[in-house]
Amino acid sequence: MKHLILLRHGQSEWNLSNRFTGWTDVELSDKGRTEAAEAGKKILASGILPDYCFTSYLKRAIHTLDIALDAMNRDWLPVVKDWHLNERHYGALQGLNKAETAKKYGDEQVHIWRRSYDVTPPALTADDDRYPGHDPRYALLTPEELPLTESLAMTIDRVRPCWEELIVPALHLYGNVMIAAHGNSLRALVMMLNHLSPEQIVGEEIPTGTPRVFTLDSSLHPTDDRYL
Amino acid sequence: MKHLILLRHGQSEWNLSNRFTGWTDVELSDKGRTEAAEAGKKILASGILPDYCFTSYLKRAIHTLDIALDAMNRDWLPVVKDWHLNERHYGALQGLNKAETAKKYGDEQVHIWRRSYDVTPPALTADDDRYPGHDPRYALLTPEELPLTESLAMTIDRVRPCWEELIVPALHLYGNVMIAAHGNSLRALVMMLNHLSPEQIVGEEIPTGTPRVFTLDSSLHPTDDRYL
Repeated sequence: MKHLILLRHGQSEWNLSNRFTGWTDVELSDKGRTEAAEAGKKILASGILPDYCFTSYLKRAIHTLDIALDAMNRDWLPVVKDWHLNERHYGALQGLNKAETAKKYGDEQVHIWRRSYDVTPPALTADDDRYPGHDPRYALLTPEELPLTESLAMTIDRVRPCWEELIVPALHLYGNVMIAAHGNSLRALVMMLNHLSPEQIVGEEIPTGTPRVFTLDSSLHPTDDRYL
Repeated sequence: MKHLILLRHGQSEWNLSNRFTGWTDVELSDKGRTEAAEAGKKILASGILPDYCFTSYLKRAIHTLDIALDAMNRDWLPVVKDWHLNERHYGALQGLNKAETAKKYGDEQVHIWRRSYDVTPPALTADDDRYPGHDPRYALLTPEELPLTESLAMTIDRVRPCWEELIVPALHLYGNVMIAAHGNSLRALVMMLNHLSPEQIVGEEIPTGTPRVFTLDSSLHPTDDRYL
């Protein structure tokens, strides 16, 4: 029996200012840091301790993991950082205030961008400062891998190889795995684990800072799925 | 041309209370956290940025690295944690106050334990709570690897495989490497890099929170060695 612990990062500074974040690398707020420590304490109290960890390339997830591990006195655990676990890329909406965007494009359009499965927000152009190709952390990515925008479907497609090539082997080799990531990259994992349809995954809301524990049998099929 | 950046952790809570620390997993003090952030800023200002990082299994080094990387906005860098980079194990002296130990054993004996190359402090027994075999983070170590006490020479011997098998390949493959570790595990690296004698390495004092940058040629021989 193995366990997979999913943890969505705590509140970030841009959650506070109600902006589309995506791949923008914003800090946790003080509340977000508190959420991360509380999550770590809950995991410790559950007795289901991680042996190996994954997170994204974004500091709100990295710091959530670091703070939660510190609360468990497990700072020494191996942590693999992988850009495939980044939040969905929000294209040209990144940095815009959500209320202002709704005024400009209409509530319905914004709802479609945020809640549909395969609709992409307006794309960046490669000369935009927000294009990930300008960021040294993505220097080894191919042009095909660098997003200009992403739908939820595209996010799920790029999370899948990380699941298959890194997380599944880690579950088999090391024991319990913990993943600190983002609303949409975690949705991708939940969709794969629970075999959800596109309609089902769009309706799945993963709360921030609340550890979700999957119990997995030896074939890594979930036998239990609950929030701590 | 490659760079190797060595960083000794900032002040810990037991530096403050003047106790022998060794493998005891104590926190950084507030001053230690400030030192770590200042070190990160100095590295950033130097323009010599790390591409790949190593640290020990001890949180005072792990947090020093995390804080320094955050100050460089490079939280996303790969970090390998390896117990071989831990501080020298101080045996049965771990946890004792240095002044009280000097009163009990005499200044000269304590000086020998602290400053000789191949003398070990009194050994722990395996039933001691401080024996690393009781700590889950060392569960995969063999009995031969688990120290009851260590001389500086023994510390150097166990750092060597980490240098040869992990750090050297990382320098060749990834570029600049940064290592956040401890006074004696960093001494081991300096001894190997600068081909120092036992007498020379005993006299080498590495200050806390001060990045030391080696410039290495393509065979990884140092062409420059300086503190930022």
